[in-house]
Amino acid sequence: MDFEYSDKVQALRAQLTDFMDAHVYPIEKERDHFHHDPAHLWQRWPGTETIKAKAKEAGLWNLFLPHEYGAWSPGLTNLEYAPLAELMGRVIGSSEYYNCSAPDTGNMEVLARYGTPEQQEKWLKPLLAGDIRSCYVMTEPGVASSDATNVETTIVADGDDYVINGRKWWISGALDPNTKIYILLGRTPNADRPRHQQHSQILIPADTPGIEIVRPLDVMNAVHSPGGHAEMVFKDVRVPRENLILGEGRGFEIAQGRLGPGRIHHCMRLIGQAQRALEYMARRVDSRVAFGRKLADQGSIRQDIALSFCEIEQARLLTLKAADAMDRHGNKVAKDLIAAIKIVAPRMTQTVADRAMQVFGGIGMASDFPPAAAFMNARYLRLADGPDEVHMAQLGKLKIAELNALPQR
Amino acid sequence: MDFEYSDKVQALRAQLTDFMDAHVYPIEKERDHFHHDPAHLWQRWPGTETIKAKAKEAGLWNLFLPHEYGAWSPGLTNLEYAPLAELMGRVIGSSEYYNCSAPDTGNMEVLARYGTPEQQEKWLKPLLAGDIRSCYVMTEPGVASSDATNVETTIVADGDDYVINGRKWWISGALDPNTKIYILLGRTPNADRPRHQQHSQILIPADTPGIEIVRPLDVMNAVHSPGGHAEMVFKDVRVPRENLILGEGRGFEIAQGRLGPGRIHHCMRLIGQAQRALEYMARRVDSRVAFGRKLADQGSIRQDIALSFCEIEQARLLTLKAADAMDRHGNKVAKDLIAAIKIVAPRMTQTVADRAMQVFGGIGMASDFPPAAAFMNARYLRLADGPDEVHMAQLGKLKIAELNALPQR
Amino acid sequence: MDFEYSDKVQALRAQLTDFMDAHVYPIEKERDHFHHDPAHLWQRWPGTETIKAKAKEAGLWNLFLPHEYGAWSPGLTNLEYAPLAELMGRVIGSSEYYNCSAPDTGNMEVLARYGTPEQQEKWLKPLLAGDIRSCYVMTEPGVASSDATNVETTIVADGDDYVINGRKWWISGALDPNTKIYILLGRTPNADRPRHQQHSQILIPADTPGIEIVRPLDVMNAVHSPGGHAEMVFKDVRVPRENLILGEGRGFEIAQGRLGPGRIHHCMRLIGQAQRALEYMARRVDSRVAFGRKLADQGSIRQDIALSFCEIEQARLLTLKAADAMDRHGNKVAKDLIAAIKIVAPRMTQTVADRAMQVFGGIGMASDFPPAAAFMNARYLRLADGPDEVHMAQLGKLKIAELNALPQR
Amino acid sequence: MDFEYSDKVQALRAQLTDFMDAHVYPIEKERDHFHHDPAHLWQRWPGTETIKAKAKEAGLWNLFLPHEYGAWSPGLTNLEYAPLAELMGRVIGSSEYYNCSAPDTGNMEVLARYGTPEQQEKWLKPLLAGDIRSCYVMTEPGVASSDATNVETTIVADGDDYVINGRKWWISGALDPNTKIYILLGRTPNADRPRHQQHSQILIPADTPGIEIVRPLDVMNAVHSPGGHAEMVFKDVRVPRENLILGEGRGFEIAQGRLGPGRIHHCMRLIGQAQRALEYMARRVDSRVAFGRKLADQGSIRQDIALSFCEIEQARLLTLKAADAMDRHGNKVAKDLIAAIKIVAPRMTQTVADRAMQVFGGIGMASDFPPAAAFMNARYLRLADGPDEVHMAQLGKLKIAELNALPQR
Repeated sequence: MDFEYSDKVQALRAQLTDFMDAHVYPIEKERDHFHHDPAHLWQRWPGTETIKAKAKEAGLWNLFLPHEYGAWSPGLTNLEYAPLAELMGRVIGSSEYYNCSAPDTGNMEVLARYGTPEQQEKWLKPLLAGDIRSCYVMTEPGVASSDATNVETTIVADGDDYVINGRKWWISGALDPNTKIYILLGRTPNADRPRHQQHSQILIPADTPGIEIVRPLDVMNAVHSPGGHAEMVFKDVRVPRENLILGEGRGFEIAQGRLGPGRIHHCMRLIGQAQRALEYMARRVDSRVAFGRKLADQGSIRQDIALSFCEIEQARLLTLKAADAMDRHGNKVAKDLIAAIKIVAPRMTQTVADRAMQVFGGIGMASDFPPAAAFMNARYLRLADGPDEVHMAQLGKLKIAELNALPQR
Repeated sequence: MDFEYSDKVQALRAQLTDFMDAHVYPIEKERDHFHHDPAHLWQRWPGTETIKAKAKEAGLWNLFLPHEYGAWSPGLTNLEYAPLAELMGRVIGSSEYYNCSAPDTGNMEVLARYGTPEQQEKWLKPLLAGDIRSCYVMTEPGVASSDATNVETTIVADGDDYVINGRKWWISGALDPNTKIYILLGRTPNADRPRHQQHSQILIPADTPGIEIVRPLDVMNAVHSPGGHAEMVFKDVRVPRENLILGEGRGFEIAQGRLGPGRIHHCMRLIGQAQRALEYMARRVDSRVAFGRKLADQGSIRQDIALSFCEIEQARLLTLKAADAMDRHGNKVAKDLIAAIKIVAPRMTQTVADRAMQVFGGIGMASDFPPAAAFMNARYLRLADGPDEVHMAQLGKLKIAELNALPQR
Repeated sequence: MDFEYSDKVQALRAQLTDFMDAHVYPIEKERDHFHHDPAHLWQRWPGTETIKAKAKEAGLWNLFLPHEYGAWSPGLTNLEYAPLAELMGRVIGSSEYYNCSAPDTGNMEVLARYGTPEQQEKWLKPLLAGDIRSCYVMTEPGVASSDATNVETTIVADGDDYVINGRKWWISGALDPNTKIYILLGRTPNADRPRHQQHSQILIPADTPGIEIVRPLDVMNAVHSPGGHAEMVFKDVRVPRENLILGEGRGFEIAQGRLGPGRIHHCMRLIGQAQRALEYMARRVDSRVAFGRKLADQGSIRQDIALSFCEIEQARLLTLKAADAMDRHGNKVAKDLIAAIKIVAPRMTQTVADRAMQVFGGIGMASDFPPAAAFMNARYLRLADGPDEVHMAQLGKLKIAELNALPQR
Repeated sequence: MDFEYSDKVQALRAQLTDFMDAHVYPIEKERDHFHHDPAHLWQRWPGTETIKAKAKEAGLWNLFLPHEYGAWSPGLTNLEYAPLAELMGRVIGSSEYYNCSAPDTGNMEVLARYGTPEQQEKWLKPLLAGDIRSCYVMTEPGVASSDATNVETTIVADGDDYVINGRKWWISGALDPNTKIYILLGRTPNADRPRHQQHSQILIPADTPGIEIVRPLDVMNAVHSPGGHAEMVFKDVRVPRENLILGEGRGFEIAQGRLGPGRIHHCMRLIGQAQRALEYMARRVDSRVAFGRKLADQGSIRQDIALSFCEIEQARLLTLKAADAMDRHGNKVAKDLIAAIKIVAPRMTQTVADRAMQVFGGIGMASDFPPAAAFMNARYLRLADGPDEVHMAQLGKLKIAELNALPQR
């Protein structure tokens, strides 16, 4: 048991911090203004590619992909990458600079683990190179998708092709002009197989006929340009049989493998946002006077700072432990901790950012300072990837079973 | 003591509900889309005037103005109007239809109470007619404005004029094309007067030279078109001496009188939003199935519904009691309750709307259903009019003094 | 709608406060020491009868019994009595002085409403006179008694008698030497009647053979002498048939009628304890200095005071509204509010008392000051009469049904 | 970074668990009944010495004393001992069996670090042998002792002696018949020294004339026999000069060194209580049915279990990190984490135990099951060693300073 970062991780954190100081923090506002400007809707900020090139050159590239992926991977463990994800998370959206952003990360893992050499050549290589982006197409409007066995979109074999029909939504990144490939989860029903083997995953190039983007969904009035979150219709969309990943009925097997690391990334990035909000809060209170006393000298402010420190530190440790458990024992054994961090981290960040906003007064709501965006992002991530409540229900059920297997003491 | 609405209030609530069924709910989405569409930035939705005309015709007009204002008033008390404000609040922004929206309401009260006949003729009458809109110009970027004695903008007498210089922000409504008049709070320093008599309020027509709108501020990425919240510079802005309200040094006296009713309106509207979120939540859970059971049959959902009911009902009673106290004893005596509702109502609505969003899953974040907007609005109102924390500090101080004056029992 | 106490209520509150100043506060510690002293276990403090006599003489007697009970009642409504119950609640256990303490109050209501003239003569009169005390015998160890249809104790007709067999627990007051009569809920199964008509209530004199007090149960290590909470066995306990109340199968009908007023009393007394804790907290912070500043001047303390005021006031209004609804529309219509106050009031008092204890520092835990006892009592009442969670589940279910019956707006 | 217990720690945990299974759990209720029985007030349960002998024989003895104490220590680090303290904590009061209970642990550390050979011979050896017990005498009724510079009891040199005068309270263990020695913090004023060097610590044998135990203080009606918490008066208490520890004016230097490890112990024991409450809760819900469904299948119960797991795990990691930091960098560097765990762990345990009590229904309040005692103990520890609020204020201040020293990012 050891609670300190290794020398290797500390060196990488220093390098990443330097990179951010040089290339990321200085242009943060410029990029945000571009993306929030309706005149640039669904356009990528031109500076993104420049920074990506610099990050690639610096070796800060694809660090998310764990060493178990062999040649595809730069060689870190999840536990080593997690503290870097925290730093990246300080600037929302910046993980793309390092080719470490969702949903590409999960899609690259799927292709690296389950893809055929041809699929890897065609889609994994350009994804790893940062030349294209991708979507993960699962959620559906008509059913409670947090229970993925409800997914109804069909993938039906027809000659040398599969034909896909269905309606999907919350397809993040679908409007990004760089998005070229989708991985879609749909039903390939087969009466001979059990309930968890009725679904498959398939690759669909974005320019395949029959795909319609119905509308971008808004998240509390924001559309998250340039990626967006689309409602989409797939109507008689036809792709060759070799686009199926791993095999019919193995959709959930793939989904399980896909889940854990992305959860770690999201949570560590949220922790980075909370940490940054805390730092801004601390600076603000040190510089403002109200009712004759510096904010930093007021008891309620000190409580807010103290509680925020306690909550951030605890969520960080829990997430790092989950990463460690995943490295040692795999996603399956670590699933309780992977559920736990999804419950803990977004709430924690929402709470910390909420406090920070209050400390700033009115301007705490505006994009002038980071807390408002952290608040919004955390609120969003309490629903993305399933509401907290679903994870609590599953974790509770799991723990009841586990604890009842212990001798009574 | 009597906890039921009077027959008069019940009849008005029925009338208002019918009006909303006929004219407000049906066009809610159309209006929202218009206002959220960047193509219509700072434009008023054309249907607004039509609905205003209908409301005026129906007598649902200026109901906010308490009977104590005599001929200007349609004759309700604050306690009678409050339950109507709750209904109006169900559709965010709809109180304008009834000429009951902030900051016009407070400005009309100021003019009705303190204005000269000339000021009333020129500005109060068109405001009461709904022909123009107005701003209240107080908050400043450089100081903690929750302590209004910090306000630094100057109002200096010069010949027959006053000359105004300073920087202001969070000036709500400044970008609305209908806004024609500002009431500004600024310093008119006078060494002979105590600290709370160093400020005055003055009328400034919107088209006066020297006024610059620097930028609209965003509230969690939304700019709240068409009204907006402006950062503004007043540079050598010159208005005639007769534009001063009530007299030099009486700015806070006016501000005090202005405060209470607006607080009631805001809080009751928030309660309306919370109530509506609860209704949507109740309907949603009755229609969705997850993991083999209707949401409505799940214990955690029932807890969310039960707690939301308890919290809404309590906040409603507290706000109604504040209105009653204000009617009976005036703002000054009721100031503890007026502070209390500012602390209670926005938090409550944020919490209830937060729960409702979770129950809806992903789509709970989108503008498809009311809870997301209620959540955002409540979060906004925790900072508008001063952060909760300022009100808690003041209420706490007040209660400590009051309770220490009691005999120990 | 009117949020102020009537003149009648204000006069009664003044009278009761004077009585408490003269007779109750001065001996509070003496009585508590007596009851907490192991040497006096299950003994009544001798001063109790003296104070009862004074209260009776002053007309502060049986005020809980609503005017609808005609000649038995001193004539108050629930709404009029509730603010008096709050005052009584300030001194835990003092409602016995006014013959207003549970479970006698509920038992007297049952006898006044459903008792035969003989039952009333024999048991109601001495109860109303304060000459004896009584128990309500419902909860059982073997089943989840919050669902009372689970109750298994049997009441079987045998000749001119009924014979009772079963195990009960949490029988409050069973160890009080003044307790002379029990009202027991048990099963009188009858295949011809629906599920809610399988139970009856019956009068059992405390000295009937076959009744065994197994043990007193402790509440967080306290046994609440002199009344206690007993685990009891009824073995072949035989009483005459005329001891049955109202008729076979009508046990739940009686239970329903019994429920509401007692809930109001409990909640108002809790509010009195919270109010008193707040008053002590306010006085304490005004007199103590830590780290160079008076506690009263510290922001976090002011927040605690402000929030406590808001929470107490809201819970009070909710409870008063429930009383008003019960007076106007009866228990059945008011059942949502009756559930709501059970959820709200004990939690609120626990929270407020918890804050007060912290403010006092270590001595906040001791019996030197009232908050610790208020904390314990509130914690106890979150479980007495069913855990909060059961009431939330029922209230949630009720509201979902109600709200789904409304038109969608 | 590594989140798993070492083989050494795992082996010790297994050994300790076996010991508890054999000797501690089986007699838990017997011992508690003895200690709660008024007939045995201030008597030690006779079985304690037997179990101590067995623990000593098994080598489970003095494990708390870190390896830095050389020959006095069995050789564990704080990080290694902490997971054992968690196990001990599962049975409240059981750490005495292993000679690991407060305040002896801190007193032994003081004597091992700062004692003279004579002091060690006379007091440390019998303490390490478990032959006697001790008190730490700091808190005073007249001042806010959380700011220890307020301590007013005097230690005045007089010939070859020091004479002690003052009033103290919350002196834990003072009523235990085995208590033979006190370490007292008092003032030895010296105008030449700064404010933090005005106090000293001195050894006072319990049988020294002039010591009066005024009364035992109660903690929510319990007196915590056999140790108790005494209010004491020291009147002209005279001890030889060589009883002073380390030197005049060095009282706070000693207190600082004393602080950290005890905090770890308390928090880990609380975590053990929370973990046990969770286990009991999980078992209970798996065996009870209410309203037609097993509790374990109800969503709100699963939420309670899931949240409790998340909170316990986070508090455990935070406490272990604090122990690790203390081992590596010393108390001073680790003071932020040492403050953080005091804020986090008692609240967490109170919350988890509170949930567990609700799940058990009424019997959750009684001593039949562990959660009620865990709840009480956690509530107590939120005030012991200073209210949370004091630690929040200090941690907040510290973090504001630290974070303002960082470059703005």
